[in-house]
Amino acid sequence: MTSMARAERHSNPAAIDLSPSVAARHACRAGTASSTAGVAPGYVQGNLAILPEKLAASFHRFCQLNPKPCPVIGMSDVGDPRIPSLGIDLDIRTDLPRYRVWRDGEVVEEPTDIMAHWRNDLVAFVLGCSFSFEEALMADDLPIRHIERNVRVPMYRTNIACADSGPFAGPMVVSMRPFKPADAIRAVQITSRFPSVHGAPIHLGHPHSIGIADIAKPDYGDPVPVEADEIPVFWACGVTPQAVIAAAKLPFAITHAPSLMLVTDLKNKQLAVL
Amino acid sequence: MTSMARAERHSNPAAIDLSPSVAARHACRAGTASSTAGVAPGYVQGNLAILPEKLAASFHRFCQLNPKPCPVIGMSDVGDPRIPSLGIDLDIRTDLPRYRVWRDGEVVEEPTDIMAHWRNDLVAFVLGCSFSFEEALMADDLPIRHIERNVRVPMYRTNIACADSGPFAGPMVVSMRPFKPADAIRAVQITSRFPSVHGAPIHLGHPHSIGIADIAKPDYGDPVPVEADEIPVFWACGVTPQAVIAAAKLPFAITHAPSLMLVTDLKNKQLAVL
Repeated sequence: MTSMARAERHSNPAAIDLSPSVAARHACRAGTASSTAGVAPGYVQGNLAILPEKLAASFHRFCQLNPKPCPVIGMSDVGDPRIPSLGIDLDIRTDLPRYRVWRDGEVVEEPTDIMAHWRNDLVAFVLGCSFSFEEALMADDLPIRHIERNVRVPMYRTNIACADSGPFAGPMVVSMRPFKPADAIRAVQITSRFPSVHGAPIHLGHPHSIGIADIAKPDYGDPVPVEADEIPVFWACGVTPQAVIAAAKLPFAITHAPSLMLVTDLKNKQLAVL
Repeated sequence: MTSMARAERHSNPAAIDLSPSVAARHACRAGTASSTAGVAPGYVQGNLAILPEKLAASFHRFCQLNPKPCPVIGMSDVGDPRIPSLGIDLDIRTDLPRYRVWRDGEVVEEPTDIMAHWRNDLVAFVLGCSFSFEEALMADDLPIRHIERNVRVPMYRTNIACADSGPFAGPMVVSMRPFKPADAIRAVQITSRFPSVHGAPIHLGHPHSIGIADIAKPDYGDPVPVEADEIPVFWACGVTPQAVIAAAKLPFAITHAPSLMLVTDLKNKQLAVL
Protein backbone atom coordinates (compact mmCIF):
# COMPACT_ATOMS: atom_id res chain seq x y z
CA MET A 1 0.00 0.00 0.00
CA THR A 2 1.40 3.42 -0.91
CA SER A 3 1.58 6.13 1.73
CA MET A 4 -1.07 8.05 -0.19
CA ALA A 5 -3.42 5.09 -0.20
CA ARG A 6 -2.74 4.62 3.49
CA ALA A 7 -3.52 8.29 4.11
CA GLU A 8 -6.82 7.93 2.22
CA ARG A 9 -7.74 4.93 4.28
CA HIS A 10 -7.15 6.91 7.44
CA SER A 11 -8.96 9.99 6.23
CA ASN A 12 -12.04 8.14 4.92
CA PRO A 13 -12.26 4.77 6.62
CA ALA A 14 -15.96 4.24 5.78
CA ALA A 15 -15.29 4.33 2.03
CA ILE A 16 -12.79 1.52 2.25
CA ASP A 17 -13.84 -2.04 1.34
CA LEU A 18 -17.08 -0.98 -0.32
CA SER A 19 -17.60 -2.78 -3.59
CA PRO A 20 -18.24 -0.46 -6.54
CA SER A 21 -21.87 -1.57 -6.61
CA VAL A 22 -22.46 -0.80 -2.92
CA ALA A 23 -20.67 2.51 -3.36
CA ALA A 24 -22.98 3.31 -6.30
CA ARG A 25 -26.07 2.64 -4.19
CA HIS A 26 -24.69 4.69 -1.32
CA ALA A 27 -24.18 7.59 -3.73
CA CYS A 28 -27.87 7.31 -4.61
CA ARG A 29 -28.81 7.46 -0.95
CA ALA A 30 -26.60 10.53 -0.53
CA GLY A 31 -28.29 12.15 -3.53
CA THR A 32 -24.99 12.52 -5.40
CA ALA A 33 -25.65 10.01 -8.20
CA SER A 34 -26.50 10.78 -11.82
CA SER A 35 -26.68 8.41 -14.84
CA THR A 36 -25.58 4.90 -13.96
CA ALA A 37 -24.15 4.30 -17.45
CA GLY A 38 -20.53 3.25 -16.93
CA VAL A 39 -20.94 3.03 -13.14
CA ALA A 40 -19.56 -0.07 -11.37
CA PRO A 41 -18.27 -1.89 -14.46
CA GLY A 42 -18.86 -5.63 -14.26
CA TYR A 43 -21.93 -5.32 -12.03
CA VAL A 44 -25.46 -6.03 -13.20
CA GLN A 45 -27.79 -3.05 -13.49
CA GLY A 46 -31.53 -3.47 -13.59
CA ASN A 47 -34.73 -1.79 -14.65
CA LEU A 48 -37.26 -1.17 -11.88
CA ALA A 49 -41.03 -1.62 -11.79
CA ILE A 50 -42.99 -1.22 -8.54
CA LEU A 51 -46.66 -2.11 -8.46
CA PRO A 52 -49.42 -2.61 -5.89
CA GLU A 53 -49.85 -6.22 -4.85
CA LYS A 54 -53.12 -6.68 -6.68
CA LEU A 55 -51.46 -5.78 -10.00
CA ALA A 56 -48.12 -7.40 -9.20
CA ALA A 57 -49.30 -10.93 -9.85
CA SER A 58 -50.55 -10.01 -13.33
CA PHE A 59 -47.32 -8.18 -14.06
CA HIS A 60 -45.23 -11.09 -12.83
CA ARG A 61 -47.18 -13.37 -15.13
CA PHE A 62 -46.64 -10.89 -17.99
CA CYS A 63 -42.89 -11.20 -17.37
CA GLN A 64 -43.14 -14.99 -17.26
CA LEU A 65 -44.96 -14.96 -20.60
CA ASN A 66 -42.52 -12.49 -22.18
CA PRO A 67 -39.13 -13.36 -20.74
CA LYS A 68 -37.05 -11.82 -23.51
CA PRO A 69 -38.22 -8.21 -22.98
CA CYS A 70 -39.01 -8.75 -19.27
CA PRO A 71 -36.38 -10.95 -17.59
CA VAL A 72 -36.97 -10.77 -13.82
CA ILE A 73 -33.65 -10.88 -11.98
CA GLY A 74 -35.03 -10.02 -8.55
CA MET A 75 -38.21 -9.05 -6.73
CA SER A 76 -39.25 -7.97 -3.26
CA ASP A 77 -41.73 -9.49 -0.90
CA VAL A 78 -44.98 -7.53 -0.51
CA GLY A 79 -44.31 -4.29 1.28
CA ASP A 80 -40.65 -5.12 1.84
CA PRO A 81 -38.21 -2.62 0.30
CA ARG A 82 -35.29 -5.09 0.50
CA ILE A 83 -34.12 -7.48 -2.24
CA PRO A 84 -31.25 -9.32 -0.53
CA SER A 85 -30.52 -11.52 -3.57
CA LEU A 86 -29.40 -8.38 -5.40
CA GLY A 87 -27.59 -6.72 -2.49
CA ILE A 88 -27.64 -7.45 1.25
CA ASP A 89 -28.17 -3.83 2.27
CA LEU A 90 -30.22 -2.85 -0.78
CA ASP A 91 -33.20 -0.55 -0.14
CA ILE A 92 -35.26 -0.16 -3.26
CA ARG A 93 -36.76 3.12 -1.94
CA THR A 94 -33.45 4.99 -1.91
CA ASP A 95 -30.89 3.13 -3.99
CA LEU A 96 -31.61 4.42 -7.49
CA PRO A 97 -30.58 7.92 -8.59
CA ARG A 98 -34.07 8.91 -9.69
CA TYR A 99 -37.56 7.42 -9.95
CA ARG A 100 -40.71 8.04 -11.90
CA VAL A 101 -44.04 8.03 -10.07
CA TRP A 102 -46.94 7.19 -12.38
CA ARG A 103 -50.63 7.89 -11.80
CA ASP A 104 -53.23 6.90 -14.39
CA GLY A 105 -50.54 6.39 -17.01
CA GLU A 106 -48.83 9.75 -16.52
CA VAL A 107 -45.55 10.60 -14.83
CA VAL A 108 -46.51 12.89 -11.97
CA GLU A 109 -43.17 13.18 -10.19
CA GLU A 110 -39.48 12.28 -10.63
CA PRO A 111 -38.12 12.10 -7.09
CA THR A 112 -34.62 10.97 -6.02
CA ASP A 113 -36.13 8.63 -3.44
CA ILE A 114 -39.59 7.14 -2.89
CA MET A 115 -39.73 7.07 0.91
CA ALA A 116 -42.86 9.24 0.79
CA HIS A 117 -44.50 6.94 -1.78
CA TRP A 118 -43.71 3.55 -0.29
CA ARG A 119 -46.67 1.49 0.88
CA ASN A 120 -46.96 -1.86 2.55
CA ASP A 121 -48.79 -3.32 -0.47
CA LEU A 122 -46.04 -2.58 -3.02
CA VAL A 123 -43.96 -5.19 -4.83
CA ALA A 124 -40.71 -4.25 -6.58
CA PHE A 125 -39.49 -6.05 -9.71
CA VAL A 126 -35.97 -5.69 -11.05
CA LEU A 127 -35.52 -6.65 -14.69
CA GLY A 128 -32.27 -7.41 -16.50
CA CYS A 129 -30.98 -4.80 -18.94
CA SER A 130 -28.82 -4.64 -22.03
CA PHE A 131 -25.86 -3.04 -20.22
CA SER A 132 -24.89 -6.58 -19.16
CA PHE A 133 -24.77 -8.09 -22.63
CA GLU A 134 -23.18 -4.99 -24.09
CA GLU A 135 -20.31 -5.49 -21.67
CA ALA A 136 -19.92 -9.06 -22.94
CA LEU A 137 -20.00 -7.87 -26.57
CA MET A 138 -17.35 -5.24 -25.90
CA ALA A 139 -15.21 -7.74 -24.00
CA ASP A 140 -15.17 -9.67 -27.27
CA ASP A 141 -14.08 -6.53 -29.16
CA LEU A 142 -17.38 -6.10 -30.99
CA PRO A 143 -17.97 -2.42 -31.75
CA ILE A 144 -21.25 -0.99 -30.44
CA ARG A 145 -22.27 1.94 -32.58
CA HIS A 146 -24.28 4.02 -30.11
CA ILE A 147 -21.59 3.67 -27.43
CA GLU A 148 -18.89 4.70 -29.91
CA ARG A 149 -20.99 7.75 -30.78
CA ASN A 150 -21.94 8.44 -27.17
CA VAL A 151 -25.68 8.48 -27.86
CA ARG A 152 -28.59 6.40 -26.53
CA VAL A 153 -29.33 3.06 -28.18
CA PRO A 154 -32.06 3.36 -30.85
CA MET A 155 -35.27 1.61 -29.83
CA TYR A 156 -38.38 0.79 -31.85
CA ARG A 157 -41.93 -0.36 -31.24
CA THR A 158 -42.47 -3.52 -33.28
CA ASN A 159 -45.52 -5.32 -34.62
CA ILE A 160 -44.70 -8.26 -32.32
CA ALA A 161 -47.44 -8.46 -29.71
CA CYS A 162 -46.41 -9.46 -26.23
CA ALA A 163 -48.54 -12.12 -24.62
CA ASP A 164 -50.93 -10.18 -22.40
CA SER A 165 -51.75 -10.66 -18.75
CA GLY A 166 -54.47 -8.70 -17.01
CA PRO A 167 -54.07 -5.01 -17.89
CA PHE A 168 -50.56 -5.59 -19.25
CA ALA A 169 -50.45 -5.78 -23.05
CA GLY A 170 -48.72 -4.13 -25.96
CA PRO A 171 -46.04 -4.48 -28.59
CA MET A 172 -42.49 -5.58 -27.92
CA VAL A 173 -39.98 -2.75 -27.98
CA VAL A 174 -36.57 -3.64 -29.38
CA SER A 175 -33.13 -2.07 -29.30
CA MET A 176 -30.96 -2.10 -32.43
CA ARG A 177 -27.23 -2.43 -32.88
CA PRO A 178 -25.72 -2.63 -36.39
CA PHE A 179 -22.94 -5.15 -37.04
CA LYS A 180 -20.99 -6.54 -39.93
CA PRO A 181 -22.38 -10.04 -40.66
CA ALA A 182 -19.58 -12.03 -39.02
CA ASP A 183 -19.87 -9.85 -35.92
CA ALA A 184 -23.66 -10.29 -35.95
CA ILE A 185 -23.15 -14.07 -35.82
CA ARG A 186 -20.71 -13.64 -32.93
CA ALA A 187 -23.17 -11.34 -31.18
CA VAL A 188 -25.85 -14.05 -31.40
CA GLN A 189 -23.45 -16.51 -29.79
CA ILE A 190 -22.38 -14.17 -27.01
CA THR A 191 -25.82 -12.86 -26.05
CA SER A 192 -27.32 -16.38 -26.16
CA ARG A 193 -25.25 -17.02 -23.03
CA PHE A 194 -27.18 -14.31 -21.16
CA PRO A 195 -30.90 -15.17 -21.23
CA SER A 196 -31.60 -13.15 -18.08
CA VAL A 197 -30.54 -9.90 -19.77
CA HIS A 198 -32.62 -10.25 -22.97
CA GLY A 199 -30.55 -13.11 -24.40
CA ALA A 200 -30.20 -13.74 -28.13
CA PRO A 201 -31.53 -11.23 -30.65
CA ILE A 202 -35.15 -11.62 -31.68
CA HIS A 203 -34.58 -10.43 -35.24
CA LEU A 204 -31.97 -9.31 -37.72
CA GLY A 205 -31.82 -7.98 -41.21
CA HIS A 206 -35.39 -7.03 -42.15
CA PRO A 207 -36.74 -4.14 -40.04
CA HIS A 208 -39.97 -4.05 -42.06
CA SER A 209 -40.75 -7.64 -41.11
CA ILE A 210 -41.18 -6.57 -37.50
CA GLY A 211 -43.06 -3.39 -38.27
CA ILE A 212 -40.22 -0.87 -38.29
CA ALA A 213 -40.98 1.56 -41.12
CA ASP A 214 -37.84 3.67 -40.94
CA ILE A 215 -34.70 2.49 -39.19
CA ALA A 216 -33.49 6.13 -39.10
CA LYS A 217 -36.44 7.13 -36.90
CA PRO A 218 -36.37 5.22 -33.62
CA ASP A 219 -39.35 5.56 -31.29
CA TYR A 220 -37.01 5.95 -28.31
CA GLY A 221 -33.33 6.82 -28.02
CA ASP A 222 -31.19 8.19 -30.84
CA PRO A 223 -30.71 7.09 -34.46
CA VAL A 224 -27.41 5.53 -35.51
CA PRO A 225 -26.32 4.76 -39.07
CA VAL A 226 -26.45 1.22 -40.49
CA GLU A 227 -23.75 0.97 -43.15
CA ALA A 228 -24.28 -0.83 -46.47
CA ASP A 229 -22.17 -3.81 -45.39
CA GLU A 230 -23.87 -4.14 -42.02
CA ILE A 231 -27.12 -5.63 -40.83
CA PRO A 232 -29.33 -4.28 -38.06
CA VAL A 233 -29.62 -6.70 -35.13
CA PHE A 234 -32.59 -6.36 -32.79
CA TRP A 235 -32.85 -7.37 -29.16
CA ALA A 236 -35.93 -7.39 -26.94
CA CYS A 237 -35.73 -4.24 -24.83
CA GLY A 238 -36.49 -3.33 -21.23
CA VAL A 239 -38.48 -0.33 -22.41
CA THR A 240 -41.21 -2.88 -23.26
CA PRO A 241 -42.47 -3.21 -19.67
CA GLN A 242 -42.25 0.56 -19.16
CA ALA A 243 -44.36 1.14 -22.28
CA VAL A 244 -46.81 -1.55 -21.20
CA ILE A 245 -47.14 -0.06 -17.71
CA ALA A 246 -47.74 3.39 -19.22
CA ALA A 247 -50.33 2.02 -21.67
CA ALA A 248 -52.17 0.19 -18.87
CA LYS A 249 -52.88 3.58 -17.24
CA LEU A 250 -52.59 2.03 -13.81
CA PRO A 251 -53.77 4.10 -10.86
CA PHE A 252 -50.29 3.89 -9.37
CA ALA A 253 -46.84 2.60 -10.33
CA ILE A 254 -43.21 3.53 -9.84
CA THR A 255 -40.32 2.88 -12.24
CA HIS A 256 -36.73 4.03 -12.55
CA ALA A 257 -36.08 7.14 -14.61
CA PRO A 258 -34.44 6.43 -18.00
CA SER A 259 -30.71 5.61 -17.77
CA LEU A 260 -30.86 5.84 -13.97
CA MET A 261 -30.87 2.21 -12.99
CA LEU A 262 -30.44 0.00 -9.97
CA VAL A 263 -26.83 -1.14 -9.54
CA THR A 264 -26.83 -4.63 -8.01
CA ASP A 265 -24.13 -6.74 -6.36
CA LEU A 266 -24.49 -9.43 -9.05
CA LYS A 267 -21.65 -9.65 -11.54
CA ASN A 268 -22.52 -9.69 -15.22
CA LYS A 269 -20.35 -12.77 -15.71
CA GLN A 270 -22.45 -14.66 -13.13
CA LEU A 271 -25.41 -14.37 -15.50
CA ALA A 272 -23.73 -16.46 -18.21
CA VAL A 273 -25.52 -19.80 -18.49
CA LEU A 274 -22.47 -21.45 -20.07
CA MET B 1 -39.36 -61.19 -29.93
CA THR B 2 -42.16 -62.06 -32.35
CA SER B 3 -42.12 -65.35 -34.19
CA MET B 4 -41.59 -63.44 -37.44
CA ALA B 5 -38.57 -61.63 -36.01
CA ARG B 6 -37.26 -64.95 -34.73
CA ALA B 7 -37.72 -66.47 -38.19
CA GLU B 8 -35.81 -63.56 -39.76
CA ARG B 9 -32.98 -63.99 -37.30
CA HIS B 10 -32.74 -67.65 -38.28
CA SER B 11 -32.97 -66.99 -41.99
CA ASN B 12 -30.38 -64.16 -42.03
CA PRO B 13 -28.32 -64.32 -38.86
CA ALA B 14 -25.48 -62.16 -40.22
CA ALA B 15 -27.75 -59.18 -40.79
CA ILE B 16 -28.91 -59.12 -37.19
CA ASP B 17 -27.28 -56.75 -34.70
CA LEU B 18 -25.52 -54.63 -37.32
CA SER B 19 -25.84 -50.95 -36.55
CA PRO B 20 -27.20 -48.88 -39.46
CA SER B 21 -23.75 -47.36 -39.98
CA VAL B 22 -22.01 -50.73 -40.19
CA ALA B 23 -24.76 -51.99 -42.50
CA ALA B 24 -24.21 -48.94 -44.72
CA ARG B 25 -20.48 -49.66 -44.98
CA HIS B 26 -21.14 -53.34 -45.69
CA ALA B 27 -23.47 -52.32 -48.53
CA CYS B 28 -20.54 -50.32 -49.96
CA ARG B 29 -18.32 -53.37 -49.78
CA ALA B 30 -21.01 -55.42 -51.50
CA GLY B 31 -21.26 -52.79 -54.23
CA THR B 32 -24.96 -52.23 -53.57
CA ALA B 33 -24.74 -48.69 -52.16
CA SER B 34 -25.71 -45.44 -53.88
CA SER B 35 -26.05 -41.92 -52.44
CA THR B 36 -25.56 -41.84 -48.70
CA ALA B 37 -28.03 -38.97 -48.27
CA GLY B 38 -30.59 -40.15 -45.74
CA VAL B 39 -28.63 -43.33 -44.97
CA ALA B 40 -28.15 -44.29 -41.31
CA PRO B 41 -29.94 -41.31 -39.76
CA GLY B 42 -28.20 -40.05 -36.64
CA TYR B 43 -24.76 -41.22 -37.73
CA VAL B 44 -21.96 -38.89 -38.78
CA GLN B 45 -21.03 -38.92 -42.45
CA GLY B 46 -17.71 -37.58 -43.65
CA ASN B 47 -15.90 -36.22 -46.67
CA LEU B 48 -12.80 -38.14 -47.73
CA ALA B 49 -9.38 -36.94 -48.85
CA ILE B 50 -6.51 -39.38 -49.39
CA LEU B 51 -3.03 -38.05 -50.11
CA PRO B 52 0.53 -39.35 -50.30
CA GLU B 53 2.44 -38.94 -47.07
CA LYS B 54 4.65 -36.17 -48.37
CA LEU B 55 1.60 -33.99 -49.12
CA ALA B 56 -0.45 -35.17 -46.16
CA ALA B 57 1.39 -33.04 -43.61
CA SER B 58 0.80 -29.87 -45.63
CA PHE B 59 -2.86 -30.81 -46.07
CA HIS B 60 -3.26 -31.56 -42.39
CA ARG B 61 -1.80 -28.13 -41.60
CA PHE B 62 -4.19 -26.60 -44.15
CA CYS B 63 -7.05 -28.17 -42.20
CA GLN B 64 -5.63 -26.93 -38.91
CA LEU B 65 -5.43 -23.41 -40.34
CA ASN B 66 -8.93 -23.56 -41.82
CA PRO B 67 -11.01 -25.57 -39.36
CA LYS B 68 -14.39 -24.23 -40.42
CA PRO B 69 -14.29 -25.55 -44.01
CA CYS B 70 -11.93 -28.45 -43.14
CA PRO B 71 -12.85 -30.02 -39.78
CA VAL B 72 -10.85 -33.25 -39.43
CA ILE B 73 -12.93 -35.88 -37.61
CA GLY B 74 -10.63 -38.82 -38.30
CA MET B 75 -7.44 -39.82 -40.09
CA SER B 76 -5.51 -42.95 -40.81
CA ASP B 77 -1.94 -43.83 -40.02
CA VAL B 78 0.41 -43.85 -43.03
CA GLY B 79 -0.45 -46.76 -45.31
CA ASP B 80 -3.11 -48.05 -42.92
CA PRO B 81 -6.61 -48.25 -44.43
CA ARG B 82 -8.27 -48.47 -41.02
CA ILE B 83 -9.63 -45.59 -38.93
CA PRO B 84 -10.83 -47.34 -35.77
CA SER B 85 -12.01 -44.12 -34.12
CA LEU B 86 -14.70 -43.88 -36.81
CA GLY B 87 -15.57 -47.59 -36.97
CA ILE B 88 -13.80 -50.65 -35.60
CA ASP B 89 -14.06 -52.62 -38.83
CA LEU B 90 -13.83 -49.60 -41.15
CA ASP B 91 -11.72 -50.07 -44.31
CA ILE B 92 -11.33 -46.78 -46.11
CA ARG B 93 -10.55 -48.62 -49.39
CA THR B 94 -13.96 -50.25 -49.69
CA ASP B 95 -16.41 -48.55 -47.37
CA LEU B 96 -17.61 -45.66 -49.50
CA PRO B 97 -20.05 -46.14 -52.40
CA ARG B 98 -17.79 -44.45 -54.94
CA TYR B 99 -14.43 -42.66 -55.11
CA ARG B 100 -12.71 -40.17 -57.34
CA VAL B 101 -9.10 -40.81 -58.34
CA TRP B 102 -7.28 -37.59 -59.25
CA ARG B 103 -4.10 -37.23 -61.29
CA ASP B 104 -2.60 -33.80 -61.99
CA GLY B 105 -5.82 -32.09 -60.93
CA GLU B 106 -8.15 -34.18 -63.12
CA VAL B 107 -10.55 -36.96 -62.18
CA VAL B 108 -9.27 -40.01 -64.07
CA GLU B 109 -11.49 -42.70 -62.60
CA GLU B 110 -14.56 -43.11 -60.36
CA PRO B 111 -14.25 -46.63 -58.94
CA THR B 112 -16.46 -48.25 -56.29
CA ASP B 113 -13.39 -49.31 -54.34
CA ILE B 114 -9.74 -48.26 -54.31
CA MET B 115 -8.06 -51.59 -53.58
CA ALA B 116 -6.09 -51.26 -56.82
CA HIS B 117 -4.99 -47.72 -55.97
CA TRP B 118 -4.03 -48.15 -52.33
CA ARG B 119 -0.37 -47.62 -51.49
CA ASN B 120 1.60 -47.89 -48.29
CA ASP B 121 2.41 -44.16 -48.35
CA LEU B 122 -1.21 -42.96 -48.37
CA VAL B 123 -2.93 -41.08 -45.55
CA ALA B 124 -6.73 -40.81 -45.37
CA PHE B 125 -8.48 -37.78 -43.88
CA VAL B 126 -12.17 -37.76 -43.01
CA LEU B 127 -13.74 -34.31 -42.68
CA GLY B 128 -17.03 -33.41 -41.01
CA CYS B 129 -19.94 -32.50 -43.29
CA SER B 130 -23.10 -30.45 -43.13
CA PHE B 131 -25.40 -33.49 -42.98
CA SER B 132 -24.71 -33.54 -39.24
CA PHE B 133 -25.74 -29.97 -38.53
CA GLU B 134 -28.68 -30.19 -40.93
CA GLU B 135 -30.00 -33.05 -38.83
CA ALA B 136 -29.75 -30.83 -35.74
CA LEU B 137 -31.52 -27.98 -37.54
CA MET B 138 -34.33 -30.26 -38.67
CA ALA B 139 -34.63 -31.75 -35.19
CA ASP B 140 -35.41 -28.19 -34.09
CA ASP B 141 -38.08 -27.91 -36.83
CA LEU B 142 -36.11 -25.42 -38.92
CA PRO B 143 -37.07 -25.79 -42.59
CA ILE B 144 -34.16 -26.46 -44.94
CA ARG B 145 -35.06 -25.22 -48.37
CA HIS B 146 -32.94 -27.52 -50.57
CA ILE B 147 -34.05 -30.59 -48.63
CA GLU B 148 -37.70 -29.56 -48.92
CA ARG B 149 -37.19 -29.18 -52.68
CA ASN B 150 -35.12 -32.34 -52.97
CA VAL B 151 -32.19 -30.61 -54.69
CA ARG B 152 -28.51 -30.20 -53.78
CA VAL B 153 -27.53 -27.38 -51.42
CA PRO B 154 -26.36 -24.29 -53.34
CA MET B 155 -22.63 -23.63 -52.90
CA TYR B 156 -20.52 -20.62 -53.85
CA ARG B 157 -16.87 -19.71 -54.17
CA THR B 158 -16.26 -16.66 -51.98
CA ASN B 159 -13.64 -13.93 -51.87
CA ILE B 160 -12.51 -15.24 -48.48
CA ALA B 161 -9.02 -16.68 -48.92
CA CYS B 162 -8.18 -19.78 -46.95
CA ALA B 163 -4.87 -19.68 -45.11
CA ASP B 164 -2.51 -21.58 -47.39
CA SER B 165 -0.18 -24.45 -46.60
CA GLY B 166 2.27 -25.85 -49.13
CA PRO B 167 0.39 -26.42 -52.40
CA PHE B 168 -2.98 -26.06 -50.72
CA ALA B 169 -4.55 -22.64 -51.24
CA GLY B 170 -7.72 -21.09 -52.56
CA PRO B 171 -11.00 -19.47 -51.66
CA MET B 172 -13.43 -20.75 -49.10
CA VAL B 173 -16.49 -22.40 -50.60
CA VAL B 174 -19.72 -21.88 -48.66
CA SER B 175 -23.12 -23.51 -48.65
CA MET B 176 -26.25 -21.37 -48.34
CA ARG B 177 -29.56 -21.97 -46.60
CA PRO B 178 -32.21 -19.24 -46.50
CA PHE B 179 -34.09 -18.65 -43.27
CA LYS B 180 -36.53 -16.19 -41.80
CA PRO B 181 -34.56 -13.94 -39.41
CA ALA B 182 -35.67 -15.57 -36.15
CA ASP B 183 -34.83 -18.99 -37.60
CA ALA B 184 -31.45 -17.67 -38.76
CA ILE B 185 -30.67 -16.67 -35.17
CA ARG B 186 -31.73 -20.12 -33.97
CA ALA B 187 -29.59 -21.72 -36.68
CA VAL B 188 -26.56 -19.80 -35.42
CA GLN B 189 -27.20 -21.13 -31.92
CA ILE B 190 -27.71 -24.72 -33.01
CA THR B 191 -24.76 -24.98 -35.39
CA SER B 192 -22.44 -23.26 -32.90
CA ARG B 193 -22.73 -26.46 -30.87
CA PHE B 194 -21.17 -28.46 -33.71
CA PRO B 195 -17.73 -26.99 -34.48
CA SER B 196 -16.48 -30.28 -35.95
CA VAL B 197 -19.08 -30.16 -38.72
CA HIS B 198 -18.48 -26.56 -39.90
CA GLY B 199 -19.97 -24.94 -36.80
CA ALA B 200 -21.58 -21.50 -36.81
CA PRO B 201 -22.23 -19.71 -40.11
CA ILE B 202 -19.42 -17.56 -41.45
CA HIS B 203 -21.74 -14.96 -42.98
CA LEU B 204 -25.33 -13.92 -43.39
CA GLY B 205 -27.28 -11.28 -45.20
CA HIS B 206 -24.88 -9.69 -47.69
CA PRO B 207 -23.74 -12.13 -50.41
CA HIS B 208 -21.81 -9.38 -52.23
CA SER B 209 -19.64 -8.79 -49.15
CA ILE B 210 -18.14 -12.26 -49.56
CA GLY B 211 -17.83 -12.09 -53.33
CA ILE B 212 -21.05 -13.76 -54.40
CA ALA B 213 -22.28 -11.81 -57.43
CA ASP B 214 -25.57 -13.65 -57.99
CA ILE B 215 -27.21 -15.76 -55.30
CA ALA B 216 -29.32 -17.42 -58.03
CA LYS B 217 -26.19 -18.83 -59.69
CA PRO B 218 -24.34 -21.14 -57.33
CA ASP B 219 -20.92 -22.44 -58.38
CA TYR B 220 -21.86 -25.92 -57.18
CA GLY B 221 -25.17 -27.58 -56.39
CA ASP B 222 -28.57 -26.18 -57.28
CA PRO B 223 -30.12 -22.74 -56.82
CA VAL B 224 -32.90 -22.26 -54.28
CA PRO B 225 -35.06 -19.15 -53.86
CA VAL B 226 -34.44 -16.66 -51.05
CA GLU B 227 -37.77 -15.01 -50.26
CA ALA B 228 -38.10 -11.30 -49.51
CA ASP B 229 -38.57 -11.88 -45.80
CA GLU B 230 -35.63 -14.28 -45.53
CA ILE B 231 -31.90 -13.84 -45.29
CA PRO B 232 -29.29 -16.11 -46.84
CA VAL B 233 -27.11 -17.81 -44.24
CA PHE B 234 -23.70 -19.12 -45.28
CA TRP B 235 -21.67 -21.95 -43.77
CA ALA B 236 -18.12 -23.00 -44.59
CA CYS B 237 -18.40 -26.00 -46.89
CA GLY B 238 -16.57 -29.29 -47.33
CA VAL B 239 -16.25 -28.64 -51.04
CA THR B 240 -13.48 -26.21 -50.05
CA PRO B 241 -10.82 -28.92 -49.57
CA GLN B 242 -11.97 -30.72 -52.75
CA ALA B 243 -11.61 -27.49 -54.74
CA VAL B 244 -8.25 -26.79 -53.14
CA ILE B 245 -7.01 -30.32 -53.92
CA ALA B 246 -8.17 -29.95 -57.54
CA ALA B 247 -6.52 -26.53 -57.87
CA ALA B 248 -3.23 -27.85 -56.45
CA LYS B 249 -2.99 -30.22 -59.45
CA LEU B 250 -1.40 -32.88 -57.28
CA PRO B 251 0.16 -35.85 -59.03
CA PHE B 252 -2.16 -38.17 -57.11
CA ALA B 253 -5.10 -37.92 -54.71
CA ILE B 254 -8.32 -39.76 -53.95
CA THR B 255 -11.57 -38.27 -52.67
CA HIS B 256 -15.15 -39.45 -52.25
CA ALA B 257 -17.52 -38.86 -55.17
CA PRO B 258 -20.07 -36.10 -54.51
CA SER B 259 -22.92 -37.14 -52.18
CA LEU B 260 -21.32 -40.56 -51.73
CA MET B 261 -19.79 -40.22 -48.32
CA LEU B 262 -18.26 -42.30 -45.57
CA VAL B 263 -20.83 -43.38 -42.98
CA THR B 264 -19.11 -43.59 -39.58
CA ASP B 265 -20.11 -45.15 -36.26
CA LEU B 266 -20.07 -41.74 -34.55
CA LYS B 267 -23.44 -40.30 -33.67
CA ASN B 268 -24.19 -36.73 -34.72
CA LYS B 269 -25.28 -35.89 -31.19
CA GLN B 270 -21.85 -36.94 -29.89
CA LEU B 271 -20.38 -34.02 -31.80
CA ALA B 272 -22.27 -31.41 -29.79
CA VAL B 273 -19.81 -29.49 -27.61
CA LEU B 274 -22.56 -28.44 -25.21
